[in-house]
Amino acid sequence: MRMRNKPWAIPFLESFGETVVKEPQLVASTWKNRLNCEILHVEIGSGKGDYWNNMAHMYPTHGWVAIEKDRNVAATCLRKNEDDILPTMALVNLDAKDIGLWFADGEIDVLHLNFSDPWPKKGHSKRRLSHADFLKEYKRMLSEEGEIQLKTDNSGLFEFSCVQMSNNGFICKDLSVDYRRVDHPEDAITEYEQRFLDLNQPIYRATWRMKDE
Amino acid sequence: MRMRNKPWAIPFLESFGETVVKEPQLVASTWKNRLNCEILHVEIGSGKGDYWNNMAHMYPTHGWVAIEKDRNVAATCLRKNEDDILPTMALVNLDAKDIGLWFADGEIDVLHLNFSDPWPKKGHSKRRLSHADFLKEYKRMLSEEGEIQLKTDNSGLFEFSCVQMSNNGFICKDLSVDYRRVDHPEDAITEYEQRFLDLNQPIYRATWRMKDE
Repeated sequence: MRMRNKPWAIPFLESFGETVVKEPQLVASTWKNRLNCEILHVEIGSGKGDYWNNMAHMYPTHGWVAIEKDRNVAATCLRKNEDDILPTMALVNLDAKDIGLWFADGEIDVLHLNFSDPWPKKGHSKRRLSHADFLKEYKRMLSEEGEIQLKTDNSGLFEFSCVQMSNNGFICKDLSVDYRRVDHPEDAITEYEQRFLDLNQPIYRATWRMKDE
Repeated sequence: MRMRNKPWAIPFLESFGETVVKEPQLVASTWKNRLNCEILHVEIGSGKGDYWNNMAHMYPTHGWVAIEKDRNVAATCLRKNEDDILPTMALVNLDAKDIGLWFADGEIDVLHLNFSDPWPKKGHSKRRLSHADFLKEYKRMLSEEGEIQLKTDNSGLFEFSCVQMSNNGFICKDLSVDYRRVDHPEDAITEYEQRFLDLNQPIYRATWRMKDE
């Protein structure tokens, strides 16, 4: 999602002292204290923050960290959700390629990848958030029972992700080639996702844990 | 596929001395000798045998064992393909629940599950050919580099299979939620499959190997 530059973005982001975490590496190992939670969720590529905000309100005792690298998108997200932000919510406006620096071993309980950029060109596969390089980092940061949840409208990204996960020590706990075929009231539907549903396009979704051995 | 009883089925099947293997347990460990091949394929639930016959002609140096429990379907399969049967082809007209008795450890190179009965009721899940109980047998019978190939129009069976495989020591090598989106000249399309393609229904397909460790 490319957005026009918003001159107000920087001062606006700066005004959210508590919610916007500028140096996440300084919070590593203390996220659960900071957000006063026992279960920590992290969403990479949170866009305008609909999922982040909806889920944080559905699960108010959990902690919710949104990562969105685009400054204008992150600012739009905050403006949109300004009046709804809970103390359990945090936003990191940085590139997730450095995520390995931001969380301690085993600190994340659920990692969410929603409608991530598919990077369809083969030469760009390393940029996909389910590439083996990322999986190595996720594995270290996930708790023992930790889980990755991936949801996408993009069949190529889904297929790639399933194979990468399987070949990098993750076990598939759940897989759906049409996730909204049945109701899932436990999982928020964003406006973005709703557009695909309105077009009758299937949503692919799977969850993985690290293997038991 | 339920078919009307065919009184000619038994004598017809009996007339195929070489091709129809009546006591497969006596062939265990010697299939490759019998079919004069180095790579042994086994298809469970071969129906009218289109895939079996097409693939055997596409790969004439490989061995091809079809398993079809329904006597009338098996007889129809042989009648349909009567003039095309190669010495590399064999048919077993028995219930695959006993497959564990028919092949020695590591004897099968590729196991094919094409459009298997989805057994959609939860209470029937043990009958699905990708249930953990079957996977244990397959694992023992597959060669070191052996592979399971599953293809289906049924999303529920596909989802179930992916999760079962992942939780029973198989690694996904390839996965597609719309296998015929691109051409696969290496894999025969049967009349049965063509009907789904004509209706624009996606074909789900995945392959798995045993994990490397």
